[in-house]
Amino acid sequence: MDRGDLFIISAPSGTGKTTLCSMVIEELENISFSVSHTTRSPRPGEVNGKDYYFISEQEFERLVAEDAFLEWARVHGNFYGTHRGYVMEKLAQGVDVILDIDVQGAKQVKKKLPSAITIFILPPSWQALEERLLKRGSEDMEKIKLRLQNAMKEIEEVTNYHYAVVNDQLLKALQELKTIILAERSKTRRVLASRIDMAALKPRPDSWVLS
Amino acid sequence: MDRGDLFIISAPSGTGKTTLCSMVIEELENISFSVSHTTRSPRPGEVNGKDYYFISEQEFERLVAEDAFLEWARVHGNFYGTHRGYVMEKLAQGVDVILDIDVQGAKQVKKKLPSAITIFILPPSWQALEERLLKRGSEDMEKIKLRLQNAMKEIEEVTNYHYAVVNDQLLKALQELKTIILAERSKTRRVLASRIDMAALKPRPDSWVLS
Repeated sequence: MDRGDLFIISAPSGTGKTTLCSMVIEELENISFSVSHTTRSPRPGEVNGKDYYFISEQEFERLVAEDAFLEWARVHGNFYGTHRGYVMEKLAQGVDVILDIDVQGAKQVKKKLPSAITIFILPPSWQALEERLLKRGSEDMEKIKLRLQNAMKEIEEVTNYHYAVVNDQLLKALQELKTIILAERSKTRRVLASRIDMAALKPRPDSWVLS
Repeated sequence: MDRGDLFIISAPSGTGKTTLCSMVIEELENISFSVSHTTRSPRPGEVNGKDYYFISEQEFERLVAEDAFLEWARVHGNFYGTHRGYVMEKLAQGVDVILDIDVQGAKQVKKKLPSAITIFILPPSWQALEERLLKRGSEDMEKIKLRLQNAMKEIEEVTNYHYAVVNDQLLKALQELKTIILAERSKTRRVLASRIDMAALKPRPDSWVLS
């Protein structure tokens, strides 16, 4: 039985990561998003088990104590975590899993699952990143400034990632992302586990080549 | 300046490797075949510098003594070798190079260029391999038997290759091969060398985010 691969995808905000990941999940088969656990309240329209698993702070702390998370972090007073069980179950079923997490979370996961494949999505330029964040228009300047300062630090980490995709044209970046994921499925381990049986590649006992 | 990648492609005879490699070279840009040096005489239609570099035995021995070959072997009394200079020049120009060599040659090259990417092409089954070799009809049974006995040993080496492609349907196998090569071009080292300049990803000194 084929084991899936874990793909860690990181990018500064404003790079189009969320859009790209959704498109990949839609267009490829046998791949799913890791749904995070969080202690924050659901926003209108958010569905438990689809957008997040919404749990209490008490439950979150219990899971942390049990080392149930591949990574977790506190952001603006709320806790977010990636549940190890969910990810491992999908991988064991032969399904690839995409983890959309930041640079710090990626480091935590890499320690626990060193075979994870890491992909960094880059903006085409710093100016493009500034423009995209300003165009969103949903946040005040202080928040945008904070995001950009984070982006500066995060971008320096790209050299620690296996792959880099420049999101200049969305469809080109999507194609590259799909290519990376599909190529990993041609790794020998996966091909021998799913597409061909080594036994079928040996002459049968009555083969004349052995006589 | 981007450095190309070296792709080592191995397969037992009868697997369709030559056809697949030619199609890849034709359909992808920025990739070329490594042309081998040989001491055997050119066959009608073969062009020096395209099919092979045809050299004398004396010259071949001189190159071996100079350690000019990434790998070399003696087959049916003739010498064949992969010239290091040719390969390194292409890679330095940012061109990917495909090396179509057997399992033994692949081992030699891997020792000298450990960053080479290795791909093994598999037949869909042992029976298919026997049938393909018999259908060729150009060789006597003893030669076919020899090829199959070699194939048996070679196939066991697949686990030492990074990637495996099953050539069941030619166009599907071609697509997988192209996907593998294209994905390698998204490796961070290559993206940072060719597609984006890290300097363009830093805020300019007058950026308000720094103020």
